[in-house]
Amino acid sequence: DADPAALKDAENTGVFDLLSDDRRKALKDADCIILAAPISAILDWLEKLPGIYSGNALVIDLGSTKEQIVRKMDELPARFDAVGGHPMCGKEKASIRFADAGIFQGATFAFVPTKRLSEVARNAAVELARLLNANPLWLDAQSHDRWTAYSSHFPYLAANILAGITQEEVSPLVGTGFRSTSRLASSSLRMMKDILLSNRQNVLAVLRQYRSSMDELEVALENADATVLDEILTRGYDQHQKIGRAHV
Amino acid sequence: DADPAALKDAENTGVFDLLSDDRRKALKDADCIILAAPISAILDWLEKLPGIYSGNALVIDLGSTKEQIVRKMDELPARFDAVGGHPMCGKEKASIRFADAGIFQGATFAFVPTKRLSEVARNAAVELARLLNANPLWLDAQSHDRWTAYSSHFPYLAANILAGITQEEVSPLVGTGFRSTSRLASSSLRMMKDILLSNRQNVLAVLRQYRSSMDELEVALENADATVLDEILTRGYDQHQKIGRAHV
Repeated sequence: DADPAALKDAENTGVFDLLSDDRRKALKDADCIILAAPISAILDWLEKLPGIYSGNALVIDLGSTKEQIVRKMDELPARFDAVGGHPMCGKEKASIRFADAGIFQGATFAFVPTKRLSEVARNAAVELARLLNANPLWLDAQSHDRWTAYSSHFPYLAANILAGITQEEVSPLVGTGFRSTSRLASSSLRMMKDILLSNRQNVLAVLRQYRSSMDELEVALENADATVLDEILTRGYDQHQKIGRAHV
Repeated sequence: DADPAALKDAENTGVFDLLSDDRRKALKDADCIILAAPISAILDWLEKLPGIYSGNALVIDLGSTKEQIVRKMDELPARFDAVGGHPMCGKEKASIRFADAGIFQGATFAFVPTKRLSEVARNAAVELARLLNANPLWLDAQSHDRWTAYSSHFPYLAANILAGITQEEVSPLVGTGFRSTSRLASSSLRMMKDILLSNRQNVLAVLRQYRSSMDELEVALENADATVLDEILTRGYDQHQKIGRAHV
């Protein structure tokens, strides 16, 4: 980590053998390199990795979008094994002080193959997910990025925009509903901007679909049209039930 | 309750002295009448109450919008005391089977004065909130309905539309973020339609403000404009922090 405060927090946990803001030092004799950083930092790491590490290693990243990252992984020298990774869990509070092994429990751990994927790397990725009690799921980078625009990136925008238009005077009337819907608005801005720019075409597609439903809803409300309102809301209710069932 | 299955569930709890789908019977010797029903049913009750109950009583409702309801309460005969009420808590699952006294704990209990508000009624309302460990908050019906459009009614729409555009294939990649943002989509359709139609002008105003922020965001993403994106998202982040702090 490049932030001294973050390194200090990490040191206080007592679980690290070596902490450094120097990439070469941090990589010392690594068999497995897990890149957990904002997407732009992961891309930068992958760019520089062959120049700063001469050994063999398995490389896994935990970035929230996969197309750009996997493209970079494809270009690594053959001494690297590489797997794109994305555990479908997290917190809106960033820092090792909020670390919690429990968030992986039962979560999907998405893995994306690269041109540098050996059988050993594939098994190691699955084993990593199993050790965390997560469920490994293999899929291609395009599907991953299209789907997470729905399941993760656009929901962040919906939450952020809701918070952004809400004035403080509303606070006394805020209950569990608002808190739940707006929770993601406190996600790390740095991380989210990277994600949105990296996956912007997919996010834009979801945004346009969302806005078109919002337009229908506006017309139904303007006309106080209970029938159309019912049709639109029933669609949301039914889909929510289906997604909930499919997930459990 | 007009639904026999709901009456049966209520009977199974063993906490009711009298259960009936006959309004006159249910009101027998009541000192305090708490109307907990969809808004259209509360309005119907208030309309018919003077004809079916000849005694004196304190009337409180728990409807999610207050202008229409309080206007009806204003017209009650002088033998009724009346307070508009709205506890800022609830569940997306309707039925007494999901009843939970804990949801009132620390929640705001909004009260709205009516022309039928005596000192006794005012104290009784506050006492009711206190017994539930909720925080009483008095405000006028207009402010209530304008603010809850932000804190509650529009968040439901944002959640519902998100669920409505999300296909089942996305399910394996659904994590806590999507679940939190879309949770309200499973709220009772009957209840929510009543709320939205009752408060549609305020909800429309929020919807238009939301859409206009969404439009800004679309342009920023189309142009991959990190600066404007940062401005918009920072607004949401900052407001979310302020609202969180103000509430705690």
